[in-house]
Amino acid sequence: MAVRTPDPDPEELPDEPRLPSDLGASGLGAVPGGSSNPAWLSDFELEAARRRLPMLYVEAVPVRIDGVGQVTDVGILLRATSVGEITRTIVSGRVRYGETVRDALFRHLENDLGPMAFPLLPPSPVPFTVAEYFPLPGVTAFHDDRQHAVSLAFVVPVTGTCEPRQDALEVTWMSPAEAASDALSAEMEGGRGSLVRLALASVGALR
Amino acid sequence: MAVRTPDPDPEELPDEPRLPSDLGASGLGAVPGGSSNPAWLSDFELEAARRRLPMLYVEAVPVRIDGVGQVTDVGILLRATSVGEITRTIVSGRVRYGETVRDALFRHLENDLGPMAFPLLPPSPVPFTVAEYFPLPGVTAFHDDRQHAVSLAFVVPVTGTCEPRQDALEVTWMSPAEAASDALSAEMEGGRGSLVRLALASVGALR
Amino acid sequence: MAVRTPDPDPEELPDEPRLPSDLGASGLGAVPGGSSNPAWLSDFELEAARRRLPMLYVEAVPVRIDGVGQVTDVGILLRATSVGEITRTIVSGRVRYGETVRDALFRHLENDLGPMAFPLLPPSPVPFTVAEYFPLPGVTAFHDDRQHAVSLAFVVPVTGTCEPRQDALEVTWMSPAEAASDALSAEMEGGRGSLVRLALASVGALR
Amino acid sequence: MAVRTPDPDPEELPDEPRLPSDLGASGLGAVPGGSSNPAWLSDFELEAARRRLPMLYVEAVPVRIDGVGQVTDVGILLRATSVGEITRTIVSGRVRYGETVRDALFRHLENDLGPMAFPLLPPSPVPFTVAEYFPLPGVTAFHDDRQHAVSLAFVVPVTGTCEPRQDALEVTWMSPAEAASDALSAEMEGGRGSLVRLALASVGALR
Repeated sequence: MAVRTPDPDPEELPDEPRLPSDLGASGLGAVPGGSSNPAWLSDFELEAARRRLPMLYVEAVPVRIDGVGQVTDVGILLRATSVGEITRTIVSGRVRYGETVRDALFRHLENDLGPMAFPLLPPSPVPFTVAEYFPLPGVTAFHDDRQHAVSLAFVVPVTGTCEPRQDALEVTWMSPAEAASDALSAEMEGGRGSLVRLALASVGALR
Repeated sequence: MAVRTPDPDPEELPDEPRLPSDLGASGLGAVPGGSSNPAWLSDFELEAARRRLPMLYVEAVPVRIDGVGQVTDVGILLRATSVGEITRTIVSGRVRYGETVRDALFRHLENDLGPMAFPLLPPSPVPFTVAEYFPLPGVTAFHDDRQHAVSLAFVVPVTGTCEPRQDALEVTWMSPAEAASDALSAEMEGGRGSLVRLALASVGALR
Repeated sequence: MAVRTPDPDPEELPDEPRLPSDLGASGLGAVPGGSSNPAWLSDFELEAARRRLPMLYVEAVPVRIDGVGQVTDVGILLRATSVGEITRTIVSGRVRYGETVRDALFRHLENDLGPMAFPLLPPSPVPFTVAEYFPLPGVTAFHDDRQHAVSLAFVVPVTGTCEPRQDALEVTWMSPAEAASDALSAEMEGGRGSLVRLALASVGALR
Repeated sequence: MAVRTPDPDPEELPDEPRLPSDLGASGLGAVPGGSSNPAWLSDFELEAARRRLPMLYVEAVPVRIDGVGQVTDVGILLRATSVGEITRTIVSGRVRYGETVRDALFRHLENDLGPMAFPLLPPSPVPFTVAEYFPLPGVTAFHDDRQHAVSLAFVVPVTGTCEPRQDALEVTWMSPAEAASDALSAEMEGGRGSLVRLALASVGALR
């Protein structure tokens, strides 16, 4: 089974660059007939870059909290992969050129949970862990066939209603104990079962 | 000038113990005619304990955040001391016997900011710093004439309206730069100017 | 089975106060014939205080690390309880009046691991978690028959040889996977199996 | 004055890929006559990538600590820029494809402080802050003419002797107060004066 970091950026080109920037016309191996904005990456170029540079990602474990901040539920996504398999995952996506980590986190939360999720992004820019995904399994707990990705992972309380868009089929809310179980972990792709446990540990909700 | 950790617990006895507990009648130097619940501390006993044990405190720097979690404003309290001086401080108070850190944090936020502040307590139990207050100035950046207090300090976004109760006169909202200034720091008691700076640093809002 | 926070302070009185302080003769329910230094607590007084105030503790999970800081081994203590049972635990002890958290951590590391352990205390005062022990099981993951204790827990690399003193019988070094196992967790007192997992999570060594 | 993230990788090509990897010959805009290992980036390709993708960096503030972990001194580097100016900075460099964050941190510490510095890398993979450098000044506290770089920043105790290699001329040890001063901050490039303050705050050494 191909294990991949979800790439929820099919429409990446249209809204990509927030810093239109003063870049010259020659980009990263600009392809003939490529996008006219040199800060955009064609799919072809992005594939090439994935083989040469670590890609920066953000990930979020959505949670529900009670009145004193204690985590009561964890949101796990059900996603259909490109080959039609169903896997479980969390909110995940790439940071674009010129985009802040916070903006990327917000964008992917909205993409994966819908516009009514009302996520509460944390005031601190410090992730609960840095997850390193390598193409070769076994270097760390995390792997990704396609690339070397370094992911800043956050726990994000959501207060609204989740209606996944794109390829995330649904959000399942479960107790911290269920989310940390071996059964769930086995269903998660790329080692994200470990990531969910680290997330729960960071909020004191792992036993 | 006497520098003290605010003690916003005048009504401490009535609602103290959440764990009524199975304690025997002999408490911590139980005074004749003292409270009938042995887990309550009389004012006299609390004063005595302050001279013999480190007291556990929680403190909170209230902030306002924007849609992606970035801190835009910092709430500083104006407080009248027992001798009528006006000082600046943050939310601060003791953790009681049987009370969780989260419950203590919520109780003091409500005491100092009023019931409509709607604080968003963080999912993580880890403070941004541990502030150690000693009776002797100079041991650390923090001091408290009255006791050895160890404080778990948190940044807490508030979303509602602050109407201080008790001896906090008012909450002033200011920019991170103002809150970190030497001028403000000089007005804050017990070294809490440093604490505000550490709070801002923890959210990446100190320059 | 009585579950307790280890109290490795039999010799507590002699070397207690680092801040000799200007305290008057009347302490926290000073007992007749008690210590002449009013900042010392007699055993009797300490027992009484444990029933009335949260006690501040520090705990440490000793680890061995490789050249790039990755945790390779975790040190678990074997300890004989006062009733002769053998349990597994970590470094743990009370913070005294006038003592900094760092000094308390160092003192308990030396008490439990011996003078040749050469622990490397972390530069940051922020614990990986705050463990709240309540007399009543179930409030949190942690409990302590004897008291309400709030513990600042740290991961501490040690570089020397551990020769436990006092009531710690021996230190067993094990892999992160073994240290996180259900089998080990079941042998640990007061919920410290969970604490070891949170420690491993904080260093990215939990799967 | 051109402000840049130091790029201490002149010899980057020879020892780059730790994951030799199974990549095909066509890389990220592979240039004719380029390196035979497709995971290497030519200088030209790296320049192009810097204009299209966020680059992942690690940074380290070297410190000396006392026996209980308290920071006593901060190491600031003196560096000659490519145009002969002298600036102050900290340890900083890019994470390569296939390299772990820990390995990158160690490599740059050794490059900038020499082989006898004996840095103690922290067991936790969590940085004290995530510094985002943008080509456009003002987006965050950090900027870099040349690229969008996202840096994971760590405080690293060093125990040996620092003998900078490459373009770092010397390491100056100073007190936390000096390192946090406005005077020093003004001499530091790209906003790293702020980064040093955040580092000091994270270890409780900022007042």
